[in-house]
Amino acid sequence: MPQPPPAEPGMREEEVDTPALLLDLDAFEHNLDTMAALLAPTSTRLRAHAKTHKSPVVALAQMRRGAVGQCVQKVAEAEALAWGGVPDILVSNEVIAPRKLARLAALSRIARVSVCADDPSGVAAIEAAAEAAGIRMTVLVEIDVGAGRCGVPPGPPAVALAERIAGSRHLVFGGLQAYHGSAQHRRRPEERAAAIAEAADGTRRTVEQLRQRGLDCPIVGGAGTGTFALEAASGVWTEIQAGSYAFMDADYARNADPPPFRQALFVLAGVMSAPRGGVAVLDAGHKAVPTDSGLPLVHGFPGATYVGASDEHGTLHGEALPRLGEVVRLVPGHCDPTVDRYDWYVGVRRGRVECLWPVAARGAMA
Amino acid sequence: MPQPPPAEPGMREEEVDTPALLLDLDAFEHNLDTMAALLAPTSTRLRAHAKTHKSPVVALAQMRRGAVGQCVQKVAEAEALAWGGVPDILVSNEVIAPRKLARLAALSRIARVSVCADDPSGVAAIEAAAEAAGIRMTVLVEIDVGAGRCGVPPGPPAVALAERIAGSRHLVFGGLQAYHGSAQHRRRPEERAAAIAEAADGTRRTVEQLRQRGLDCPIVGGAGTGTFALEAASGVWTEIQAGSYAFMDADYARNADPPPFRQALFVLAGVMSAPRGGVAVLDAGHKAVPTDSGLPLVHGFPGATYVGASDEHGTLHGEALPRLGEVVRLVPGHCDPTVDRYDWYVGVRRGRVECLWPVAARGAMA
Repeated sequence: MPQPPPAEPGMREEEVDTPALLLDLDAFEHNLDTMAALLAPTSTRLRAHAKTHKSPVVALAQMRRGAVGQCVQKVAEAEALAWGGVPDILVSNEVIAPRKLARLAALSRIARVSVCADDPSGVAAIEAAAEAAGIRMTVLVEIDVGAGRCGVPPGPPAVALAERIAGSRHLVFGGLQAYHGSAQHRRRPEERAAAIAEAADGTRRTVEQLRQRGLDCPIVGGAGTGTFALEAASGVWTEIQAGSYAFMDADYARNADPPPFRQALFVLAGVMSAPRGGVAVLDAGHKAVPTDSGLPLVHGFPGATYVGASDEHGTLHGEALPRLGEVVRLVPGHCDPTVDRYDWYVGVRRGRVECLWPVAARGAMA
Repeated sequence: MPQPPPAEPGMREEEVDTPALLLDLDAFEHNLDTMAALLAPTSTRLRAHAKTHKSPVVALAQMRRGAVGQCVQKVAEAEALAWGGVPDILVSNEVIAPRKLARLAALSRIARVSVCADDPSGVAAIEAAAEAAGIRMTVLVEIDVGAGRCGVPPGPPAVALAERIAGSRHLVFGGLQAYHGSAQHRRRPEERAAAIAEAADGTRRTVEQLRQRGLDCPIVGGAGTGTFALEAASGVWTEIQAGSYAFMDADYARNADPPPFRQALFVLAGVMSAPRGGVAVLDAGHKAVPTDSGLPLVHGFPGATYVGASDEHGTLHGEALPRLGEVVRLVPGHCDPTVDRYDWYVGVRRGRVECLWPVAARGAMA
């Protein structure tokens, strides 16, 4: 059962029921405009990653500013976007299970849908689903450009898989998925530059080998919020898959040269106990603000530190703390899993609730 | 929007869509029966904690075996339970916000509802809500017995707050909330025994001081899965608030003397990439299996280790791994936040899906 909205338009921020997922609309729009302006002079386009925002409303706001489509990691996310009117969706991930592929093929009746593969048996599974649905599915080859997770090695193994796709009556070869996830969070710019330079070498080489075999790459996709300027400048990538840029989080803020975006996403929490001097206990623990990338920061209380998260409690220590019954904005450690904890965005501007948007793909893991 | 059920009754476990929350019904029923048998000869009763299971179905199964009611941490959890037919619910936590207290007071028309306080202003807020709703609300005083989180100190501060409650026309003094959360996970039994002995001293002293002022404690509540035998044997506590015992997790299994319950809760994950020898990538990362208490264990593959979780991917290393397209059971690091990620329990017995139960209070954080 979805949770009821924690606010109504027109309310003051302090009246919002806690914990709540707050979107500072001025900062959010600034971030969308900034990314559009940064990519405009380059040859790359934005295909924003919806694993961060999980919302057709956000997706369409990105596309109105020039994004060519959206990425997702899961078929269930693709469904939520397509049902919400998003016309072009890339599953930037492998999908193997026949039931999932049947759902994805069904979706291609209402949206342009593509998916990745890194194994011949995966290609065969996509082929079978496309044939059964009577459609042609676009498939990208994922290459491992340094992340060490999924993907075939750049070069001949990628070319072989691409030829397997291109040779199928039911599939279309769509290009390369070349994402270096862990590079986003390397703290020093020279570390990130070195990682992306190496990723660019392997990707460029693979694109050239494919061209020699007569295979063009309509999409060469990759990059995230921590490195997208490097990929955009490389001349190799055609699409940038940044997601966090719209919201930002405490982890990206820890990079030595944080990306040029404002903190737009917060968890609004309330103080529900103040048992001793120098201590305030919030109604937001790690169920409300996941801690996989560190504890949240306390916004607007420079002397306050969020020192510990249990399931439903967050403990603040400090000299000047919010008082019992007051609310406070937390900056999540990691925006993606935080958004996925909530059914609603509460959009605020200058202290007032302006809108409520459903997190339509909340929990869409299948 | 809730996610669709990932299975249907009668399916084989391998056919369940992944990731999915699996409940091994034989182990689950064993755990419920075991707890009932362990508490039967004692003077304490079980008030199981629903922050773990978030399900009226589970709650009523516990109550059929003798549990006197349920605990919750949040008003929204209390709502989900009361709407599902649970007749007796303690919010084992402070509630301060007037809107939340109004919802709790409204709920007391259909269930017996009580709540905790650790501050006179909190008592005043509960009083105002009870008066406005025209009901009497039962309030427990939370004492800090070593957890260092919420609660007044044992002894005179607790007595003063209890007298404040007992003196109100709209409130009933319900007893003490005396929970030592962090003691559950101390690895060695003598560490846990020492922590609970100290908690018992402070609680016993407070109960006696209250009695001297003419105030009885109908409920003295506390304890969790890691220590409940100590509290049950103490003669101090009347109610045990264990939750995890029904499911278990990898963290409790790391105690030197794990509690006498079986692993009943799993996340079923599928291998969606097998890019290199010795590596398998699952479709379950930390969105599917929260890692606040460590990475999950891989069930049934003794040589396989879950070495890393990203948002949607879990990487296994090992010699003998599940193959591409196969499913595998993961033992979550921490059962509470894991359950809260899913809309459905898939109940399985001997390899077949037997039932689907909604996680009715999924995301109920307000």
